[in-house]
Amino acid sequence: MSELRKDLISGRWVIIATERSKRPDDFRPAAGQPRAEEARGFCPFCMGNEGKTPPEVYALREAGTSPDTPGWRVRVVPNKFPALNRGTTPPKRSRGIFEWMEGIGVHEVIIENPDHDKELVDLAPAQVTDVLLVMQQRLRAIEEDLHYQYVQLFKNKGKEAGASLSHPHSQLVATPIVPKRVKEEVYGAERLFRSFKECGFCRIVREEQAAGERLVYQNRHFAVITPFASRFPFEMALFPLRHMPLFTAMRKDEVGSLGEALKAILTGLRVTLGDPAYNMVLHKAPNPALSFKTWPGIDTYFHWHIEIFPILTKVAGFEWGTGYYINPVPPETAAGFLREKGSP
Amino acid sequence: MSELRKDLISGRWVIIATERSKRPDDFRPAAGQPRAEEARGFCPFCMGNEGKTPPEVYALREAGTSPDTPGWRVRVVPNKFPALNRGTTPPKRSRGIFEWMEGIGVHEVIIENPDHDKELVDLAPAQVTDVLLVMQQRLRAIEEDLHYQYVQLFKNKGKEAGASLSHPHSQLVATPIVPKRVKEEVYGAERLFRSFKECGFCRIVREEQAAGERLVYQNRHFAVITPFASRFPFEMALFPLRHMPLFTAMRKDEVGSLGEALKAILTGLRVTLGDPAYNMVLHKAPNPALSFKTWPGIDTYFHWHIEIFPILTKVAGFEWGTGYYINPVPPETAAGFLREKGSP
Repeated sequence: MSELRKDLISGRWVIIATERSKRPDDFRPAAGQPRAEEARGFCPFCMGNEGKTPPEVYALREAGTSPDTPGWRVRVVPNKFPALNRGTTPPKRSRGIFEWMEGIGVHEVIIENPDHDKELVDLAPAQVTDVLLVMQQRLRAIEEDLHYQYVQLFKNKGKEAGASLSHPHSQLVATPIVPKRVKEEVYGAERLFRSFKECGFCRIVREEQAAGERLVYQNRHFAVITPFASRFPFEMALFPLRHMPLFTAMRKDEVGSLGEALKAILTGLRVTLGDPAYNMVLHKAPNPALSFKTWPGIDTYFHWHIEIFPILTKVAGFEWGTGYYINPVPPETAAGFLREKGSP
Repeated sequence: MSELRKDLISGRWVIIATERSKRPDDFRPAAGQPRAEEARGFCPFCMGNEGKTPPEVYALREAGTSPDTPGWRVRVVPNKFPALNRGTTPPKRSRGIFEWMEGIGVHEVIIENPDHDKELVDLAPAQVTDVLLVMQQRLRAIEEDLHYQYVQLFKNKGKEAGASLSHPHSQLVATPIVPKRVKEEVYGAERLFRSFKECGFCRIVREEQAAGERLVYQNRHFAVITPFASRFPFEMALFPLRHMPLFTAMRKDEVGSLGEALKAILTGLRVTLGDPAYNMVLHKAPNPALSFKTWPGIDTYFHWHIEIFPILTKVAGFEWGTGYYINPVPPETAAGFLREKGSP
């Protein structure tokens, strides 16, 4: 059973994941290889290997096919080495001066398609829409039925971005506490709402559309920019044009439009940078049933968005100490390259 | 000239470093190699190559030797590609709704010894003391004479930890604004002081000494632990036993003792993990002349310390979204290994 532990000074929670427990030799240079199974050409996420994952929790499948058999288009399974395990929300406990709680939560993998070599960017628009609809379903199911305070949806693409398996997949982790960084963003958004007298994200998008120099892509429902204070080279932020605090509030036509936007900007990244590893991170309001009480008005000032950044620089001592970042590519320059290359 | 830019939502500052400006091709896989010069066996930090760095700002040298010639033991030079450039503290400016300022600051490199292949852990105790005394001198000089609000001292060892040159060195970056993460730590320390009625760091050290399970090393003046909520496998925190807000307040006998502690724990890391890349980050109170006014009492509740962590896992989508970390090695396990291996 893993543990959630709180750092006394920063208030940051850490997951001590005993299910993934490692010994020093696991970190020696020779161990930095793909898992032994994958090295032998075996992938547990490929069609036909359904028995090698924990039983699926959800899938889009051909009519008449059974769970954990072939015939699926998108498949969701619990992570085999979960950071957190399902259960009821645990109480906070203490050990001397330190706070901790049992590592309760949800950790699922969304296998985006059956083909090992087809990345999100390679899928047909309808397939990307399928992946996004499944993401909406999982967020809804976990927040509404299981009452977790926050679900973090993310994609690690490539080893440098933290992926341990190369078959295209996304992940979600539900936690019993609203994460510190999410709370900070909620407070920041509220502050901005007070200052601008409107949603700060709506305002930023409007200003960026007018200025144009950091605008990478836009379609009927979405705009993608390289943020003014980008931490990383070629960092992008994607915003829905309609004000929405929750990813699950997206209508089906908007989901289709989001798929187009993602395909365009991932194409731009690949053409500009040669298929880099990247992280894609959803930012959304916490579980509405719980958090709309804690933050009244959050639906007016929070606006979901997606961050995407290729892994090109290292986070190092200066960044760890200060929280500053050093970015060697001005976002205006990055937008110029991405805009040119991402156009269909 | 680089720019400091503020992220509207998070309040985080970012350095857009035009001096280091890169184009997309610089990030293509083939570019991930050592600098061309170093690949040819040339190192600008080695003895005899003093002309290949900007003129030195400080050095410990043999009597009678001139600046920028051989004969030094520790040498400090401006970073050749500085993230920030020297100048007077710039005003905040705006560009539409966005805030920015000129990238003014200091970025120096402390070349720890003339020998390319001798890491900090390999140096004789007196040499480590020299390096630490030079660090104190630079912090004092930059804060007292140049009036920067914060100086971040750090060491990136190995490419995975962000080092672009392999000759052993540390760096410091002085910024015109107290970094967000430093402020958060100051506020956290103050909160803890109020709760414990004493310095929270002093209390943590005492509890860890009593419990013992996360204690890695101690000597007359220092204790090293694996923090209860360690973010990373084999993360360590080093604390002076005497309460001090500032690294520069260390007496010479304490500096000697710190050198011994660093040698012991870096030996422990090397023996346990096979010479991993690591980051070492100093946490100290901001410039006293400026910040003791902003945070009255900071000298009672802030306690300098050093974080050291090997680079063994990737910071990925989940961490970026939430600020949570997943650590697959319980700190009690890590301390067991490090304690055993680090003993002389």
